[in-house]
Order: sequence, then C-alpha cells, then structure tokens
Amino acid sequence: MTTQFHGIIGYTITPFSHDGEQLDLPALGQSIDRLIDGGVQVIAPLGSTGEGAYLSDSEWQQVAQYSLERIGKRVPSIVSVSDLTTAGAVRRARFAQQHGADAVMVLPAAYWKLSEAEILQHYRAIGAAIDIPIMLYNNPATSGTDMPVELILRIVREVDNVTMVKESTGDIQRMHKLQLLGEGQVPFYNGCNPLALEAFVAGAKGWCTAAANLIPALNQQLYQAVLAGDLAQAQALFYRQLPLLDFILKGGLPATIKAGLGMTGLPVGEPRRPVFGLDEPNRVKLQGLLDELRQLK
Amino acid sequence: MTTQFHGIIGYTITPFSHDGEQLDLPALGQSIDRLIDGGVQVIAPLGSTGEGAYLSDSEWQQVAQYSLERIGKRVPSIVSVSDLTTAGAVRRARFAQQHGADAVMVLPAAYWKLSEAEILQHYRAIGAAIDIPIMLYNNPATSGTDMPVELILRIVREVDNVTMVKESTGDIQRMHKLQLLGEGQVPFYNGCNPLALEAFVAGAKGWCTAAANLIPALNQQLYQAVLAGDLAQAQALFYRQLPLLDFILKGGLPATIKAGLGMTGLPVGEPRRPVFGLDEPNRVKLQGLLDELRQLK
Amino acid sequence: MTTQFHGIIGYTITPFSHDGEQLDLPALGQSIDRLIDGGVQVIAPLGSTGEGAYLSDSEWQQVAQYSLERIGKRVPSIVSVSDLTTAGAVRRARFAQQHGADAVMVLPAAYWKLSEAEILQHYRAIGAAIDIPIMLYNNPATSGTDMPVELILRIVREVDNVTMVKESTGDIQRMHKLQLLGEGQVPFYNGCNPLALEAFVAGAKGWCTAAANLIPALNQQLYQAVLAGDLAQAQALFYRQLPLLDFILKGGLPATIKAGLGMTGLPVGEPRRPVFGLDEPNRVKLQGLLDELRQLK
Amino acid sequence: MTTQFHGIIGYTITPFSHDGEQLDLPALGQSIDRLIDGGVQVIAPLGSTGEGAYLSDSEWQQVAQYSLERIGKRVPSIVSVSDLTTAGAVRRARFAQQHGADAVMVLPAAYWKLSEAEILQHYRAIGAAIDIPIMLYNNPATSGTDMPVELILRIVREVDNVTMVKESTGDIQRMHKLQLLGEGQVPFYNGCNPLALEAFVAGAKGWCTAAANLIPALNQQLYQAVLAGDLAQAQALFYRQLPLLDFILKGGLPATIKAGLGMTGLPVGEPRRPVFGLDEPNRVKLQGLLDELRQLK
Repeated sequence: MTTQFHGIIGYTITPFSHDGEQLDLPALGQSIDRLIDGGVQVIAPLGSTGEGAYLSDSEWQQVAQYSLERIGKRVPSIVSVSDLTTAGAVRRARFAQQHGADAVMVLPAAYWKLSEAEILQHYRAIGAAIDIPIMLYNNPATSGTDMPVELILRIVREVDNVTMVKESTGDIQRMHKLQLLGEGQVPFYNGCNPLALEAFVAGAKGWCTAAANLIPALNQQLYQAVLAGDLAQAQALFYRQLPLLDFILKGGLPATIKAGLGMTGLPVGEPRRPVFGLDEPNRVKLQGLLDELRQLK
Repeated sequence: MTTQFHGIIGYTITPFSHDGEQLDLPALGQSIDRLIDGGVQVIAPLGSTGEGAYLSDSEWQQVAQYSLERIGKRVPSIVSVSDLTTAGAVRRARFAQQHGADAVMVLPAAYWKLSEAEILQHYRAIGAAIDIPIMLYNNPATSGTDMPVELILRIVREVDNVTMVKESTGDIQRMHKLQLLGEGQVPFYNGCNPLALEAFVAGAKGWCTAAANLIPALNQQLYQAVLAGDLAQAQALFYRQLPLLDFILKGGLPATIKAGLGMTGLPVGEPRRPVFGLDEPNRVKLQGLLDELRQLK
Repeated sequence: MTTQFHGIIGYTITPFSHDGEQLDLPALGQSIDRLIDGGVQVIAPLGSTGEGAYLSDSEWQQVAQYSLERIGKRVPSIVSVSDLTTAGAVRRARFAQQHGADAVMVLPAAYWKLSEAEILQHYRAIGAAIDIPIMLYNNPATSGTDMPVELILRIVREVDNVTMVKESTGDIQRMHKLQLLGEGQVPFYNGCNPLALEAFVAGAKGWCTAAANLIPALNQQLYQAVLAGDLAQAQALFYRQLPLLDFILKGGLPATIKAGLGMTGLPVGEPRRPVFGLDEPNRVKLQGLLDELRQLK
Repeated sequence: MTTQFHGIIGYTITPFSHDGEQLDLPALGQSIDRLIDGGVQVIAPLGSTGEGAYLSDSEWQQVAQYSLERIGKRVPSIVSVSDLTTAGAVRRARFAQQHGADAVMVLPAAYWKLSEAEILQHYRAIGAAIDIPIMLYNNPATSGTDMPVELILRIVREVDNVTMVKESTGDIQRMHKLQLLGEGQVPFYNGCNPLALEAFVAGAKGWCTAAANLIPALNQQLYQAVLAGDLAQAQALFYRQLPLLDFILKGGLPATIKAGLGMTGLPVGEPRRPVFGLDEPNRVKLQGLLDELRQLK
C-alpha cells in the first residue's frame, strides 16, 4: 500500500457554540475552506487540536461526516480515530472509511499504561477492520504512552496498512532513528511545530500542523524552500514563524488557534471545559505576533 | 462538612462477559459482598481498578446505580466520577449523589495539560453541582496531571465540599507536606499500595486499595496494628503482603485483581481491550503469592 | 565480617577560614566533640556535608587524620573516601584505614557515566586494598550515578567487605526492595533526612545525618522511639523536626549546617566557593526554626 | 571582545601509559598534528573527551602546556579549565592564558547543586581573572547542572569575556531560543554529535567534536556543505556519519575515540579507571563502522 501524503497537513479545530455545548458545523466548514485556500496538501480532522477526545460518540461522528463531505476530495484527508478502547477506535476507523477518509490516524490513548504487545494488538485490530492506510501517532505528552522507534517499526512491519508515522516527542533524534532503522523506507511526519525546519532537514515527508489555520503561506513557503534545497531561505522562514509556533504550542493548540481564527474573522468559540479559552494578556500577545507576521510579508 | 471515611477503602472491579462487551452485574454484586465480608470500612466503585475510563456513559450509569444499590449503605461509598470534560464529570457527580453515594472521587483527567486555574475551576464546577463530599485524587501516572500540594490545599480551601485528598504519586514526602501545610486538618488517603505502611505512619486516614478484593484480612490487620500503635506488628504485616502489593501494581490492577478473583472462586472476565488479561506466567506467579499468604495465616 | 553500626550517624562539616582558603582544624575538633556530646552512635567525616569533594588531596588527608585522632575511638568512625578515579579512592581508603577508621564510605562519583561493570570493579579494587568494612553509598543527585537495588546487592555479594548500604535516593521503595531482595541480611542506612521516620519503619539500621550537628537530642529521641516500637511518639518527634530537616536539605547541607553551628556558638566559616553561605533571609528562617525547637523541648 | 571561532572544533584525548598511571605526551602531540592535518578550524584540549576531570593538578598543567606548545598557534585553541572549586578554575584559566590559549571553556561542574547566583559568580570570578574569551559550556549530563537559556544569556550580558556558548543538552530547541532571545548576536556551538546537522541549520557557528580524531574529512565536508547552503549534500553527509557519531556518544567518548585512534595507527592507551576501555564486541563494531566509511569515500 503506497501513499503520497506529503507537505503541510493542516489540522482542523472543532467550533462550538458560546457555551461549549453545541457543535458549530458551518464554522467548521469555513475553517476547512480556509485551509484549502491556504494551500495545505492534506487536511486532518479530529486530531488533538480538533478536541476529538472531548466529544461524545455522536458528536464525533457528526464532525467526521461533515468534515469529509466539506473537504469533498479537494485534498486528501486523514481522520483521527483514537479512542481509549480498541472497540471504540475500530468503530471510528470504520466510520471514517465509510464516509470517504483517505487515511486514519491512531494515537494509542491510554488510562492504564499499555505494554508493547497491547499496543501492537490495538493497531492490528484497527488495521484488520479497514482498508485505508493508518498513520501511527506517537505523542507521549497527550497519550501517556511513548512508543520507542523499535516498536514503531515493528508495528509498521506487522500491520500492513500502518504506512506512516507521525512523531511528536520533540526529540529530533527519533526521526534520525526512524530514517536509519527504517532504511529510508518508512515515511515519517513531524507533529512538533518548533521542530518544523529540523524535521524536514532530517527527512520528514510532511508537517502536521494547526498553524496552517493562521499562517498557511509561511508554512507552505518553508516546505517549498526545503523542497528546493534552499537552506538559507528555509532558515530565514523558520525563524520568522518560530515565535508564533512556540506560542501556539505553549498556549495550547485549541485555545490559541481558536483565538487566532476569531482575530482573523472566523469566530469558532472556545475550547470545551475544563480547557480555557485564551486569556486577555495572551490574546494581546497573539494579536501582536500575527500583526508582525503580516507586516513582514 | 465533616467526614468519617477511614481505614481500608476497597476498590471494585467491573466484571465483563468473556468478549469484554457486556457488563456482568451479578458478578459485580458478589465482589461487593466479598469486600464487605472482608471488613472494608468503605467501598469505592468505578475507580482506576474499576475501568471507569473504559465504559460508555450508559454503562457507567448502570455500574454506578447497581453498585450503590448492592452496597445498600452497609458501608459508606465513594464513587469515582472523573471525566475528561467538566460537563461530563458534573453529570456523573449528580447521578452518583441522586443514587445514594456518600461521596465522589475526582481525578483531573486530561488530554490537553491543565493549568492550575483550569483544575480549580473543574473542581469548583463539580462542587457547586452536588452536596456530598469530594475526594480530590492526585495520580499523575494515569491522569497526566500532577497537582502540587499547594494547589491541592488551595482547592480544599476554596471548594467547600472538597474535604479529602487521595495521594497516589508514590512520593511519601507529599503526605508530609499535606500534613504540615494542612496543619493536620486535611484528611489524606493513600492510593499507592507499596506505601501502605509509610502512609499510615505519615498520618494517612485511610488506604485506598484494590488488594482488599484478594487479601482483605491482611489489609485490615495492618490498619489495626497501626491504630494500636504496634510498630513491630505493623512492619511484619506490611512486609508479608508487600510482594503481592508490588505484583498487583506492576501487573496492572484490573488484570491482576480480576485474575486473582477468578483464582479465588469468582470469575469476573478480563479487562477491556486494549488492556490484556494476565498472561500465564504471571498467573502462576500470582497463584504462588496467594498460596504463600494463605499458608502464613 | 560483621558490623554493629547503627543509630544516629553524625556527619561532620569541614570548617574553613573566612576566605575559604585555610582549614580550621580546631573548630573541626570542637564540632566532633559536640556530636559525641550529643549522643551520636557513629561519626562520619568527609562526606557530602564535609565538602570532601572540594578539598585538595593534602587537605583531605589532614582532615581525615585530624578527625580520626579527635574521635579517638570514643565512637566508631566511617570516613568517606570517594574520588573520581579508582586509584584516588584506593589511596584514600588505605589512608583512612592506616589512621584508624572503622569503616569507609564510597560513592561512585562520576564525570562520565559508569556502567555496572565499571562500578563493580571500582568497589572491588577498593575492597581489595583494605581490610575494614565499606559502606556503599547511593546518591544519584550528587554522584550522577543511580545504582539499582539489584546492582547494589550484587556488589554486596561479590565484594566481601562491602557490608553496608547507604540509600539517599529519597525513594522509600528502594529500602523495601533492599529488605525483601536482601532477605533482611543486608544492613541499610538512610541518607535522606525527610525520610527519617519511614526509613526506620522500613527497617533501616541507622540514619546518616548532618542534622545531629544542630538537633542531636531530637534525632536520638526519634531513633529511641522507633527502637521502643512507640509509633505515636516516633510520629510526633518526626513531625516536630521535619521543618528543620526539610530546610537543611533544600538550603544545601554545608551552607545550612555551618550557619546553624555559628548560631549555636561554634563559628566554622562558610562553604568553599562556588557554593555560597546561607543568605540573610534564610539565616533568619533557620534561627526561627532552631528557636522553635528549643522552646518545644 | 569579538571572536572568530567557527567550524570544526576538534577535542583532544589525553593518552596514558598502559597502566593508566603516566601521561604519554608524545602520543598527545601526534594526535594534535592529526587533528590539524585533518583540517579542524580550532583545537580544544582537556575537555570531557580529554578526561580533564580525572587528572591531578600537576598532570592537568603538563597537558595544557604541552598541548598549547604543540598547537603552536597553527590554529586557535580553547582550553577547558573547569574545576569543582572556583579557586581551582581561576588558577587553571590563568595558567591557560599564560601559556597562550586563545580562549578557555568553563563547565559549571558541581557536587552540590548550584543556584543561578552561584553559577553567575563562578563565571564572574573566572572572567575577572583573565583577558581572553570564555566559552560557557552547558552539559547537564556530565556537570549535573542545567543552565536555562535565560541564565546563559544573563551571564553573557554580565560577564564581558563570556562571548561563546557551547550547548550539549541534545535539545535543539535550546539553540532556537539562544538564537531568538540572543537576537542572533550570541555565537553558539554544538556539543551534541548526533545534532551536528540540525545545529548548523539552527545557526550554530561551530561543532565541538571528538569525532574529528577519526573522521575529520567527513566532519569538515558537512560543515562546508552547510556553508554552501547545499541542503541535500549536507543531509547525505550527515546520515553517512551518523552511525559513527551515535556509536562514539553511546560508547563514551574517551573509550571509543582512544580505541579508534589505536585502530588507525596511533596507540593512546585506555581511559583512566573506573572508566573502561572499549570491549571486544564494541571494538569489532567500531572497526566495521570505520571500514564502511572508508569505502564510501
């Protein structure tokens, strides 16, 4: 199973009504259109930024179905189907496939720490339930489970449709190891915004980022500079956007991206509680960062 | 709001059918009766051991209601109502109160890391929704959120019905700090089995443990030895049960306690996937530990 | 080789002249007399508190020889002989034995991280060079090397005169493991002041502490309460002295103990730079803690 | 004070006689010549690889003086003068300056953890004692002290001759932060071999490496490819040498570099105990890595 996912993979937010209770699907649709207008190569609904973990099953299905329809194959899509139970992740993976997803992403979410055998079996069960590719997602900061490179490669070898790896530990040496031990045959993607440049330099095929909701042109230019092998240009573009990348990571992606969308004309509500929206001092800071980037262009 | 929770607080498992899909409520009832027969001072349904995080909302309600009815006020009850969203935790807390729980337990479960203000607001919202006491639960290994003692005490001061603290970091110095900074006025409970003796020695009012499903007499004897101020006896009782306590912690509480219940005549199925049941080598080891403890008595 | 080291093992400071350049041996002598008058069971010169790591070889020898002469077998002595090189540690161990030390203490100090084979060989070389017992000292916070219990027990088994273990990780479960895996046959000693009570409860034979320079009576009363099996009394004595124990640990033992000795009539100078003496706000705090303990007695 | 240190900064080993007791200065001289022949831009004696921490004061002076004479200003030199005491580091810094060093390097080595004020004062005292530039060296794995970027920049601002920063935490984001907060005005150097490419991409002025003893041409080619802005070439060169860079880091630099020098015709003995020389299986592996790199050229 080959796959051509590459470049900027834009993550969607999930807009809520003011009280956080209702989904705001029309706003979701507009945010998807903006990502596509911004030039992303791929769209990924319901990831960490999309607050997938905070939705009821019914809400999750509404968002998945609506997103896939709105994307409408204009670009490929990767739907996050992570769930604490294997049965739940299988159900979501099937739902995504049935509604037209081009791939699914799976984080081994955990309450009780998982053994390597349990993680492998989790991927195997999901893989057996669908025909589309799976992007394995390693992010110990949110999942509580850190998959070493050796385990990741074992899963890639043993589960046919696990064909892509998203690495978000923030440790660039994991990507070196994926490149060396995977003999350049396992496509990996960067999920840690402040490593955007280094990950491409290390060989990442794409950059999974919610920043594309706010600065799609800068994200894309960085990718194109790397493709062109222009190191000086890539470095300059990276440092230009790094303060914003640092800010959205530290401030929490749902809160900062939602605030930024509001500032740029698309109100999408706040994160669902207990997560707070961006407070006033940080809104001022974000506005400043966005203004500065706009002037530079 | 005063509270008399003390002693051995026994955590229930949640029995499933063989395929992990259906609840087995009659088995749950028997396990509750065994805990009470074993002399626990309190019963706590739906905690970590009870796989509360792996249940659907509907299943969670069935288990909560059934457990409370079966306990039938024979001993006080503390129902874990943790949920990733504040709205969900509030709903569960209200449900527990309506069905007769004497207290609820709340872990600040998190996907996105929570700030101190977010955690405080989470407890405040739950506290405002119910009239019964809340046991605040700190367990970074499962929640991903480590609440420092200063934050815990701030929540206790600011939210009236947060009246108890369950500490499961495994760091005995946290309990010292709770005792010193709380001026002996904040009852704390130990959630780390291998610290059972030291926690009591440090002043813990109770020991939250799933071990009471398997060795209730030994758990109780340790508590009574401490109450009697008999250090030598307490030390001997602690080291006698420590190998089992270490084993159930390292093997994962749902897997080991469920296996142990099966070995002692009460089949309760396996944990829900992706968590595995106990494998054969570890079943042999567990049987050995249980046999040894039985001979010693 | 059997050993009777037990109880309060008092660690000496190393007094310097005002500019930190010269040793002040007469003040060292007085501090040793005070420890013995305070009732310590054992005296340990040149440990972490004694700034052994900051002395030249010649200074180290002067302090070792002077300390052993002043102790004069009134109580047993354990001299810390740690050095970054094996050759240096062997030289110091021989020197200590020649000058009458009853035992030596060895921390596997490291610049380059040591493998288990390197650590074992280090102890083996020192053990082969002397005839007196060695106390193995595990303190990763200062040595950079954390010896797991399994390695410690291997060294105890393979090197005849390694007969005692000092544990300073601050993790009480290490002592449980030493007790269980060592089958109660390996005497261990606590080097983490805030764990004083729990370590005794877990079976520690002694408490290695610099606090005995300041509050020897309280240290001794705690030990005696434990020997008498009086849990309530031990708990009360522990919490009474805990604020001071916390303070000296957090403030750095050389700085706080030296300041405290000065406050109680024995000026001993300051730590050697780059380590600072206690600043004024902390001196006020220390004086307050000492005053409070004096009133309580 | 401006400085032109850039490129490959080659670290010397310190050769010993077979028993580890005597210095082998002629072999040191040959290794220096090889580094210069290999094209390094700068030579750095007595660093971590040079086992500076394991030498007596007298040995340290011999090696410093001999190295500086042998380098003979053919390339600039940076002598590591770290010592546990401030007085010792000052003495070594003066000695290095008197014997012609172009700069000194200072790691805040620590037994007792240092506060920020203590670290600042340490650098201030050394800075005041000499007129040549200081390279501040952050390497918590060996020093036990991790200096955050804010502290590093404060030291650079407050101590005139601290003009360069060597970063060895292995976290590329530290370099981003040095670049952003230092506004591109603080030259930083990479001390973590497996980050060689990323550090240059992030803006590092040089690469501090002992690998130049073994593969100077590959190190230099990587630097030149970066200077030329040739990303594809830099990436290829990086991945070619990465297995060796990983190997020497994991195997311990003194052991692996000394073994490698022996394999390439320059016997330099083994590391000083307790550090072991490379064992046979790893010698075979190192030989294989070197052979492979030779064939590729």
